[in-house]
Amino acid sequence: MYQFKLLRKDPSSGARLGRICTTHGEVNTPVFMPVATQGTVKSLIPETVQNLGAEMILANTYHLYLRPGYEIVKKLGGLHKFMNWGAPILTDSGGFQVYSLGALRKISDDGVIFKSHIDGSKHFISPELAIEIQEALGSDIMMCLDECTAYPASFREAEKSLALTLNWARRSKAIKKNNEQALFGIIQGGIYPDLRLRAVEDISKNIGFDGYAIGGLSVGEPKEEMLSIASLTTPLLPDDRPRYLMGVGTPEDIVTCVDYGIDMFDCVIPTRCARHGLLFTNHEKVVIKHAQHRDDDSPLDGTCDCYTCRNYSRAYLRHLYMAKEILAMVLNTIHNVRYFMHLMERIRAAIRDGKYREFKNSFLTDPNTAISQQTSFE
Amino acid sequence: MYQFKLLRKDPSSGARLGRICTTHGEVNTPVFMPVATQGTVKSLIPETVQNLGAEMILANTYHLYLRPGYEIVKKLGGLHKFMNWGAPILTDSGGFQVYSLGALRKISDDGVIFKSHIDGSKHFISPELAIEIQEALGSDIMMCLDECTAYPASFREAEKSLALTLNWARRSKAIKKNNEQALFGIIQGGIYPDLRLRAVEDISKNIGFDGYAIGGLSVGEPKEEMLSIASLTTPLLPDDRPRYLMGVGTPEDIVTCVDYGIDMFDCVIPTRCARHGLLFTNHEKVVIKHAQHRDDDSPLDGTCDCYTCRNYSRAYLRHLYMAKEILAMVLNTIHNVRYFMHLMERIRAAIRDGKYREFKNSFLTDPNTAISQQTSFE
Repeated sequence: MYQFKLLRKDPSSGARLGRICTTHGEVNTPVFMPVATQGTVKSLIPETVQNLGAEMILANTYHLYLRPGYEIVKKLGGLHKFMNWGAPILTDSGGFQVYSLGALRKISDDGVIFKSHIDGSKHFISPELAIEIQEALGSDIMMCLDECTAYPASFREAEKSLALTLNWARRSKAIKKNNEQALFGIIQGGIYPDLRLRAVEDISKNIGFDGYAIGGLSVGEPKEEMLSIASLTTPLLPDDRPRYLMGVGTPEDIVTCVDYGIDMFDCVIPTRCARHGLLFTNHEKVVIKHAQHRDDDSPLDGTCDCYTCRNYSRAYLRHLYMAKEILAMVLNTIHNVRYFMHLMERIRAAIRDGKYREFKNSFLTDPNTAISQQTSFE
Repeated sequence: MYQFKLLRKDPSSGARLGRICTTHGEVNTPVFMPVATQGTVKSLIPETVQNLGAEMILANTYHLYLRPGYEIVKKLGGLHKFMNWGAPILTDSGGFQVYSLGALRKISDDGVIFKSHIDGSKHFISPELAIEIQEALGSDIMMCLDECTAYPASFREAEKSLALTLNWARRSKAIKKNNEQALFGIIQGGIYPDLRLRAVEDISKNIGFDGYAIGGLSVGEPKEEMLSIASLTTPLLPDDRPRYLMGVGTPEDIVTCVDYGIDMFDCVIPTRCARHGLLFTNHEKVVIKHAQHRDDDSPLDGTCDCYTCRNYSRAYLRHLYMAKEILAMVLNTIHNVRYFMHLMERIRAAIRDGKYREFKNSFLTDPNTAISQQTSFE
């Protein structure tokens, strides 16, 4: 049975320590969920993902709906069994992926008609079907189908879009059959505080869900807008439910938004950057293809406890990357995921110690962090 | 120190049980060496390769010479340390890769001038440099630079080519400095028994090496020619040295050639086929993309003890393959390498039991094997 325990509120900030309990195990919050888009955290076996410290992963309903199909996953015993992952899984609703299709989708009150990015075939997803799919997948936390408000959008556009999301949220809750699986509502409203406030009122007070996500951010708006909306919206959400900032983000964004009271994050940054040879360390961001690593015998990060840092030199990692070896992606992903998991461990420890604000300030003003924020990876 | 122990000769066939001892550990023969072309068995961490039962791997001098460069590998402590593989390594001489470059190479008495397949840069490798490179890499077994005789080639062409290989073999042995590393000679001679005989005489009696390889096969000649030359040449080689059939092969070829007295094999078949979704099992060869596996809950091979077969359905493996997921290559490679390692275990057990001929006949006449031989993978 799903349950959220708020264990501690940091006296120095808005940060919270909590625990999500599911039938597949417990998740300590603040949590970062590595993304398993198509039913695999790209390049890693699930045992490795778990050993790196991941307690919950995110899988994409849109992708699994198209391939292999949710009936197949259901027939094979659900997503946990299918992908050999015994711990909790959160599935998104597919709303964001469909939004990303741009011209390939058409939204009505009923739902979304869209064309598959794989073969152009036409599909229709309604709020009801999104729940049916996620119930078939058997995830521990499901998300309501929402409309991700575009950026930029006028107040009127954002208001209209929000009305749809609120309507869909009602329908999602009404259709949900299963008490084993939690259902989260999503707060939309674009960059308009009034709309965000209206969304919180309706989603959390009038309807009520097992947890609340802030959606529609990181879709092109300036970083300050994102942080401003997140900081404004988070404290309005009920204390006794987890708060999930969808699709965020960089280490700096995570550290910042934990202070607002966010409990859950997901992002493709660690895994996607790893595949492109962009590596996070406690001292710098490393672009592994750079010639300076050519004969560098040192590990990526001498302070990191991951398998990659314990066993391989930067020179070897550069060689694998330049030679386009699959193992480059495996070893880089191991490191980046571990970096994010270790960051979450540090965040939770700081909250436990009641010193989160201090941790945050130190992390964000660290000259290495500051340098890394200015350095583009490309 | 390198040593070969011939432990047992099968009374029913030409098969032999042996052990190669190196400073990096022991290798039970007959052995199959997975190929680590660029210093990695593609997609796998070395611990996985070892857990699958691999006792020795093969790395390609040509590839490592071009990238990252042998001086860099040497500076970083040699290939074992560079790639985190503690067990024995055999390096080829680069001769076969250079041969494969076709129009991009020019051979003289001195050595080979060739253009890099990566950037077109011009390079020269002599027999002496091939040894210097392999000494820098620090492999346990080095190979002499040879000229792979083309197929087809006239007797005169093959004779001329062989003369070069014999000359280079002398120069290779003369330049070798290091007693920690073994050096193998290569028997060329095309499809001409007289030339193969002459090569054996010169390479094994007049010069003498730590082991002997049969080269120049599997280069386009009909399978019967390959088997005929291998069966004719192998018994001529000295009993007290390992015999290595380079670049072979399929499970059927391996089972056949062990009967001739071959002790060592290498081939990209298990790893390359895996990446293309072509999987060996004890019952059939599986093309994982086929629609029949779409919702098949059964493992690839219910009798296989590998990680992939213990944890994943054919449906999941098909999904990963169709979705072009990196994990498809990882899981498929684990299975195929394990299939080959298990085959070698069965081969060694049959020799130990003195029943190799029986094993071979049963393996080759098994209706499943027979079916698989007729079935093209494509």
